[in-house]
Amino acid sequence: MLAPEGAACAGAFTRSVVRAACVDLCDDRLREGGGQARAVLINSGQANACTGDRGLIDSLRATQALADRLGLNGEAVLICSTGVIGVPIPMEVLLGGLDPLVEALNAEGGAAAAKAILTTDLVEKEIAFEAELDGRSVRIGGMAKGSGMIHPDMATMLGFICCDAAVPPPEWQAMVRRAVERSFNAITVDGDTSTNDTVLAFAAGDPVAPSCHAKLEEGLTLVAQHLARAIARDGEGATCLIEVQVEGASTEAGALKIARTICSSSLVKTAVHGRDPNWGRIVAAAGRSGVVFDADAVALWIGPHQLMAAGQPLAFDRAAASAYLSERAYGRYLVEDSVQIRLAVGSGAGEGTAWGCDLSDQYVRINADYTT
Amino acid sequence: MLAPEGAACAGAFTRSVVRAACVDLCDDRLREGGGQARAVLINSGQANACTGDRGLIDSLRATQALADRLGLNGEAVLICSTGVIGVPIPMEVLLGGLDPLVEALNAEGGAAAAKAILTTDLVEKEIAFEAELDGRSVRIGGMAKGSGMIHPDMATMLGFICCDAAVPPPEWQAMVRRAVERSFNAITVDGDTSTNDTVLAFAAGDPVAPSCHAKLEEGLTLVAQHLARAIARDGEGATCLIEVQVEGASTEAGALKIARTICSSSLVKTAVHGRDPNWGRIVAAAGRSGVVFDADAVALWIGPHQLMAAGQPLAFDRAAASAYLSERAYGRYLVEDSVQIRLAVGSGAGEGTAWGCDLSDQYVRINADYTT
Repeated sequence: MLAPEGAACAGAFTRSVVRAACVDLCDDRLREGGGQARAVLINSGQANACTGDRGLIDSLRATQALADRLGLNGEAVLICSTGVIGVPIPMEVLLGGLDPLVEALNAEGGAAAAKAILTTDLVEKEIAFEAELDGRSVRIGGMAKGSGMIHPDMATMLGFICCDAAVPPPEWQAMVRRAVERSFNAITVDGDTSTNDTVLAFAAGDPVAPSCHAKLEEGLTLVAQHLARAIARDGEGATCLIEVQVEGASTEAGALKIARTICSSSLVKTAVHGRDPNWGRIVAAAGRSGVVFDADAVALWIGPHQLMAAGQPLAFDRAAASAYLSERAYGRYLVEDSVQIRLAVGSGAGEGTAWGCDLSDQYVRINADYTT
Repeated sequence: MLAPEGAACAGAFTRSVVRAACVDLCDDRLREGGGQARAVLINSGQANACTGDRGLIDSLRATQALADRLGLNGEAVLICSTGVIGVPIPMEVLLGGLDPLVEALNAEGGAAAAKAILTTDLVEKEIAFEAELDGRSVRIGGMAKGSGMIHPDMATMLGFICCDAAVPPPEWQAMVRRAVERSFNAITVDGDTSTNDTVLAFAAGDPVAPSCHAKLEEGLTLVAQHLARAIARDGEGATCLIEVQVEGASTEAGALKIARTICSSSLVKTAVHGRDPNWGRIVAAAGRSGVVFDADAVALWIGPHQLMAAGQPLAFDRAAASAYLSERAYGRYLVEDSVQIRLAVGSGAGEGTAWGCDLSDQYVRINADYTT
């Protein structure tokens, strides 16, 4: 990826203390460069994590070699890696591929890039929005890879977003942080975080007026949420996307925490897989989230079916609720047909949404048989 | 269970904000009674959670009815429930069973009680130790039920421990809290916490000298750890017990947190199920535990096989390590044949051990098909 001169670049990285060399390099360069960067090199096959000093040397060599070919300063080039942990990048292969790569650079290359970065993903994940903003057309596009963290050795979630309007780096960084919190940080497949998880977002072009920043952030969030949902639904062995909306919490952070805990509960995930409207598992997961709420204020819906009110179970049509869950199986290319779970935990203003997928026996078979 | 007059009783309860009525009752009575109690009534079949006001009324009625028959004050009787959430206790059945229950009370009834409290468990879980302490014989016995949280509607983990020597309530409470932290709070099957989880521990008899309290706590911890491991190995669909020892952390709490995160990682659990010595999954789980450590100081062993040193992978005999994992499948009645994972994360004094089990496709099938 090559961005125009002066492009703002915001990064969000894995919170794991075991980070790949490329993540350290991106983080350092964005910090030292004042939130600006020009290009990203992405390699698929080796995560370049747990590779010691050699990992950093390889990242430096690769970015410098690309910078030389693009006529850029080495510090303006970032690198993201995804693949097997503990295996070094075969540098001769990578360096030998740079000339054809630079030659092939073009404005329509997005789809090819979205395909090239996949590892065990089943589908490409990309999207672009265009909207009138500040009296002109502004476009935000993005691509991502990742099947949750289901293939740990090929597990990285990478996301790349571009906006063709300029936003000052500090404001762009803040927007991206909030959008990531409401999208990539709100999905879960199996709770495992990678050594390499990275989102990079570029903004360059004519500046948009500060009065339009809120609108721009809305678009940015939509792009990020679309990509995040696409990753969750590509979770290995999954047969449906689960969307959990929590409302009435004291804070947005509390609502998000409850929603994520429900999404990551193995018991909720297996119940949905079995098309079982097992409300007890949902409220039990909420209860252990660590967020304080009044258990007597809980109300719960699965799709159109209300299962609880004022903390107690309601009579409901179990067969119809089960049928609702069955109808939500996908169609891998449709993103909007998710299982909707809505939980109210009080009358606070905090609300939040998280996404996940069901847990199938196929997930276990795939992961038990992965490397040996 | 009936304890002698003056018995100290310490309780540890679920941290979920959605708590069953019986948990509230036990917690309140132990607090108000200064850490003393005389009897516990246990019912299996209904959790008495999410049952509203009726739940508390039923708990009060049941304990008062038992107190009347035993000639005790109602406040001295506790109740623990396990079973389906949201379904009230059939009180006529429960009350009708009290007379025969009281009649059958005897000092050799432990094994029958350990069987009666099971729900979906495959095996009874009990143990007793006897040791010379303070110049005389002291015995600590315990029983527990729970298959992890794998059957959410029948999910409760209950543990009961008795010691035939007296310890003042505040000291006993502190001992039990520490022992629970190193045992029941260090196991995980699928990360889900119940609305009903409870441990009650009684101590009554001749007092032991304060100088012997440390020794007594050792025995208490052994009993609790045995019962906790027995619950983990009875995890539904599990084929082996996993023990994770973490050392070199700054604090014991940090070491325990890392150990628990590894034990609860779906990727580690499926790798062990597939007998795959996939070290990348273990160190990645440690990295996301939220505990800070130096990734370059990591060393890792699976059984006798060292897989990492100084944060980098070592060459190792993959077939032999896989064979080690295969040999550890159980034998449901043996508790000592666990898969041993040892992780060093630095040179700190903090160490901790957690227990879990592997994740099999049978787990998913059981839980997907549970209620419909």
